[in-house]
Amino acid sequence: MKNISILGVTGSIGTQSLDVIRKNIEEVKLISIAANNSHEEVISIINEFAPKYVAMMSEKATEIIKNYVRENSLDIEVYSGIEGLNKIVTIKEVDLVITSVVGMIGLVPTMEAIKAGKDIALANKETLVAAGDIVMKAAKEYGVKILPVDSEHGAIFQCLRGNEEEKVSRIILTASGGPFRGRKREELVHIKAKEALKHPKWNMGQKISIDSSTLMNKGLEVIEAHWLFNASYDDIEVVVHPQSIIHSMVEYNDGSVMAQLADPDMRLPIQYAINYPKREEKVIKPLDFSKISTLTFEKPDMDTFRCLKIAYEAGKQGGNCTAIMNTANEMAVELFLKDKIGYLDIENIIEDSLNTFEYVSNPTLEEIIELDRKVREYIIKTYNA
Amino acid sequence: MKNISILGVTGSIGTQSLDVIRKNIEEVKLISIAANNSHEEVISIINEFAPKYVAMMSEKATEIIKNYVRENSLDIEVYSGIEGLNKIVTIKEVDLVITSVVGMIGLVPTMEAIKAGKDIALANKETLVAAGDIVMKAAKEYGVKILPVDSEHGAIFQCLRGNEEEKVSRIILTASGGPFRGRKREELVHIKAKEALKHPKWNMGQKISIDSSTLMNKGLEVIEAHWLFNASYDDIEVVVHPQSIIHSMVEYNDGSVMAQLADPDMRLPIQYAINYPKREEKVIKPLDFSKISTLTFEKPDMDTFRCLKIAYEAGKQGGNCTAIMNTANEMAVELFLKDKIGYLDIENIIEDSLNTFEYVSNPTLEEIIELDRKVREYIIKTYNA
Repeated sequence: MKNISILGVTGSIGTQSLDVIRKNIEEVKLISIAANNSHEEVISIINEFAPKYVAMMSEKATEIIKNYVRENSLDIEVYSGIEGLNKIVTIKEVDLVITSVVGMIGLVPTMEAIKAGKDIALANKETLVAAGDIVMKAAKEYGVKILPVDSEHGAIFQCLRGNEEEKVSRIILTASGGPFRGRKREELVHIKAKEALKHPKWNMGQKISIDSSTLMNKGLEVIEAHWLFNASYDDIEVVVHPQSIIHSMVEYNDGSVMAQLADPDMRLPIQYAINYPKREEKVIKPLDFSKISTLTFEKPDMDTFRCLKIAYEAGKQGGNCTAIMNTANEMAVELFLKDKIGYLDIENIIEDSLNTFEYVSNPTLEEIIELDRKVREYIIKTYNA
Repeated sequence: MKNISILGVTGSIGTQSLDVIRKNIEEVKLISIAANNSHEEVISIINEFAPKYVAMMSEKATEIIKNYVRENSLDIEVYSGIEGLNKIVTIKEVDLVITSVVGMIGLVPTMEAIKAGKDIALANKETLVAAGDIVMKAAKEYGVKILPVDSEHGAIFQCLRGNEEEKVSRIILTASGGPFRGRKREELVHIKAKEALKHPKWNMGQKISIDSSTLMNKGLEVIEAHWLFNASYDDIEVVVHPQSIIHSMVEYNDGSVMAQLADPDMRLPIQYAINYPKREEKVIKPLDFSKISTLTFEKPDMDTFRCLKIAYEAGKQGGNCTAIMNTANEMAVELFLKDKIGYLDIENIIEDSLNTFEYVSNPTLEEIIELDRKVREYIIKTYNA
């Protein structure tokens, strides 16, 4: 029995993780959970899964959960704030932490969990983008596995299976191309949040849906792939594959390409990470090749979708560049969702931030956290947000 | 250094194997070779690779090679006939035998090599189709590896890598569909050998090109997959994929499908088998996904291409059925190539043979060899060949 902790249990990945746990109830137990504010969902999770530890970011929600626990005489410890998150992922019984919170908030609890020797099922992209060097070094030092929980890195991880000793010549990250694939720059200017949130293939949270539309999501994934699989940026290729059936590929030095395919359903990579290295019974519907009929491939248009190019460049520069890019993107997406900036301002704000903040080659975790605060402050001030 | 023996060194797979050896000269050494009659090619191979043992099926060719060896004072032992084949694959120095002869002739030397503890790089389809049960049991008994040397089983073999302990729910064999894909029965009646030999994707020997056009080639591969990967026939699915980029796939119990992709080039699976488990440097040209553009999939038309259905049925019946089918097919293709029968007579002759010969559930190797002789005799007599 593997004891699971979920950070961000009420989000998109969190609720799909619960569904996977539901279907693997003999192999795994949900022991601790954390959420931001959604106390009603948390109460329903408490009733179904009986976790022993709960943390809420919001103080108000913490009080509500504490009252609920008291009134129902439940044997649950309730914690609050970032300390609460750090607490529930480092508890002795926890074997694996699913970090499915969105944004920079995931970084510190992930580091705490690593230091406590917990394996990480990583769904929080920002962790590796902001602090890949620090996180991967810590994972090595504390002997913990970083198991990717997204369809692309999960696919690469599967393609590498059994070939760990072999030379990889290329990682081929597939991209759906997002809802605006094929459009020209001038057609992007007046895009509103509502349109950008309509992803053709995946039903995801708001932040990742916008990132997917700008191709920044693929940019973040390129940087993650660099860290997860120790791959040079020149060996990571993005291929647009709108059907989202091939979730990514690995080419070996002999020219052979291994690919992982499945219906687009996050529960597969979640289940793979949770049960790794064991594959458990299907949580997804099998592929029907006579219905798939056609898979297509094309080059990404990095001149129109400049965020992907910016991410490659930030990745190659290294140092604190990807951290700056990441926070700037997070802020810009937030402003765009609130209709405070235009669609193409997202990339402008990222570039402005990269030009504004000084390059640091080997930032510490503290410096990255401080940088995050400063970039947020700068963007609020500059863009009157 | 791995010492290689090649049976059928002047054929299509044989010459491509030589090319792979040429490019892996630091890892492997060609120690023994066998060919049918092509003494000129064999002399040129002797001059380039300096094998220590040579066998020729034809007595006349044996004499020519013996003379050549004598005249040039070469340190080469020359053998003749089927005993010669058995001899050169069982020699002490041999580590791996590439069985690239076509047809039933491959069966006995392969069994001899297995009994001598040699790993087999199996390119001879008929070995497993005629005697899969016997061959796989012998491989297990003598602790030898059977490494598939064709693009489909090589792909499956790669897809299974690292997942040997996991449950497979489906093997998905891809098929190009051959040169007559999409045609109706009535359009097949008057096909001549010349048309059937034009394969759209692969440049292969005559027998396999005809088999590929009738889909019998895929039928033989279904039966091979059954034996190689211990898969039930109901779990082996054929999907027509005309681009021949995905060489086959494996679906696991979690619904995840692993696929192997490459430019259609036999040198990759040959190299993979020769160097297994190590992947060596590219002998093929890498895939360019922006040029591939589209991959398509469709169900095979087993009502038009009945050979595939016959193969599934013979496989499910087991016993001596696949051996009867195999010899009948081999004979029928020979007659078709000589223009002695029509294209659809190939399947008629196979069905007639399956109906004529008595079912035997566990034939011995001797019985299979005797059956091969009898089926040949029957077809010659009946079809006045």
